[in-house]
Amino acid sequence: MTELKYLDVFGQRSTLRSFSKERHVSDSDLEAIISAASHAPTTGNMQLYSVVVTRDAAMKRRLAPLHFNQPTVEGCDVLLTVCADFNRFERWCECRDAVPGYRNFHSFVTALIDALIFTQQFVTLAELNGIGSCYLGTATYSAAGISEILGLPDRVVPVATLAVGYPADGYPAPSDRLPASAIIHRERYHEYTDSDIDAAFGDKEALADSLRFVAENGKSTLAQVFTDVRYPRELNEAISRTFYEHISEKGFV
Amino acid sequence: MTELKYLDVFGQRSTLRSFSKERHVSDSDLEAIISAASHAPTTGNMQLYSVVVTRDAAMKRRLAPLHFNQPTVEGCDVLLTVCADFNRFERWCECRDAVPGYRNFHSFVTALIDALIFTQQFVTLAELNGIGSCYLGTATYSAAGISEILGLPDRVVPVATLAVGYPADGYPAPSDRLPASAIIHRERYHEYTDSDIDAAFGDKEALADSLRFVAENGKSTLAQVFTDVRYPRELNEAISRTFYEHISEKGFV
Repeated sequence: MTELKYLDVFGQRSTLRSFSKERHVSDSDLEAIISAASHAPTTGNMQLYSVVVTRDAAMKRRLAPLHFNQPTVEGCDVLLTVCADFNRFERWCECRDAVPGYRNFHSFVTALIDALIFTQQFVTLAELNGIGSCYLGTATYSAAGISEILGLPDRVVPVATLAVGYPADGYPAPSDRLPASAIIHRERYHEYTDSDIDAAFGDKEALADSLRFVAENGKSTLAQVFTDVRYPRELNEAISRTFYEHISEKGFV
Repeated sequence: MTELKYLDVFGQRSTLRSFSKERHVSDSDLEAIISAASHAPTTGNMQLYSVVVTRDAAMKRRLAPLHFNQPTVEGCDVLLTVCADFNRFERWCECRDAVPGYRNFHSFVTALIDALIFTQQFVTLAELNGIGSCYLGTATYSAAGISEILGLPDRVVPVATLAVGYPADGYPAPSDRLPASAIIHRERYHEYTDSDIDAAFGDKEALADSLRFVAENGKSTLAQVFTDVRYPRELNEAISRTFYEHISEKGFV
């Protein structure tokens, strides 16, 4: 077996939600990290994303309710809203006598993929420099509201928000993950039998935190905490409507 | 300014398309990298993705036309198809007396985001270990055909394909990127003026490769190479239809 490096660094990373009030990520450091992270892969080297940097306390306060008042929004050093962005590319085309054809669903998917590849590259490079972060899934929940506050034009849709900063007091312990065998399929997808599901989720279900979530929510299984409390169908369906409407309004459908 | 680390490693990485025939990524190394990369952030710790590993030459040959016969498909050591996967999570719910509510568009978007975060974490960790890769954007172009060959069930959609392996002969030079100032917006999105567009794209347009692309394709600007040759509207619209149909067929809409 090869001597693999960085397995522990990557395998023991964790999400940061409690940020230092004293130590700040400077504009020049932020720009240097964004610049290096932008060398992540990108479709046809089009770089179909933009980053809106929020430092202003009043702007954070306006964005907070759209992120369900998660305390990291006002508590972080800097908030980044990463957007799927075909606007800049279209503007380039318009300035160069070219007729863009990106007002369609797949172009949105392409920009979304580009944006997330960049975002994760930023997260990793920041972490390797002691700067932690937390993804806020609410970026897509509240896309229209965020778009209005940040002044996003057509063909620009928020797809990931990161709360970023140095840790107030170290990093939390890494959270659990499924065994790799549960996510790997060899040559063809193998459908999960009931015992495969037990093998995949058994350790997670036995964690003290999991047992506590089940008890606190008055449920009988951990899966019910997800389906009935954290990510219920009604919420998913409501966001599906508003998010699809939003990408339509932004001219992607 | 802080002494930032890894800026050169991240800023000078490049995509690999020419793979060693002698040196192979072992199953155990592949699993170790996937396992560590799976500690990347994931929505609610649901890990809504799967990785289908293709090593078999006959399977690569069947997949190649779906990837427009890009030579990396048969030329790589191992091909990974990363899928947005709500099937495993649903199977867990079914085994645990929970009623899943993920047959909707936003759940697809959530799984797509999870899948790309994981994929890029894999790419970076592999690169730090001397293993290169190339994203094949054709994963979404040919989702239905890939799905059939890999036996993907409902709620599993291919979103990224990686050709992976050790380099045959080193890495190519890093490709150009836009200046960071072109992708960063402070507090609010600033619309790009014509001179902003010149500043963003000027260096790219002046590259020898860019001038060659323009000449080879008989165009007058680099933007026209994208709009008329590489990513034309008719192709984007056709893929929009087939990809949206595919995620509908897989039960996400």
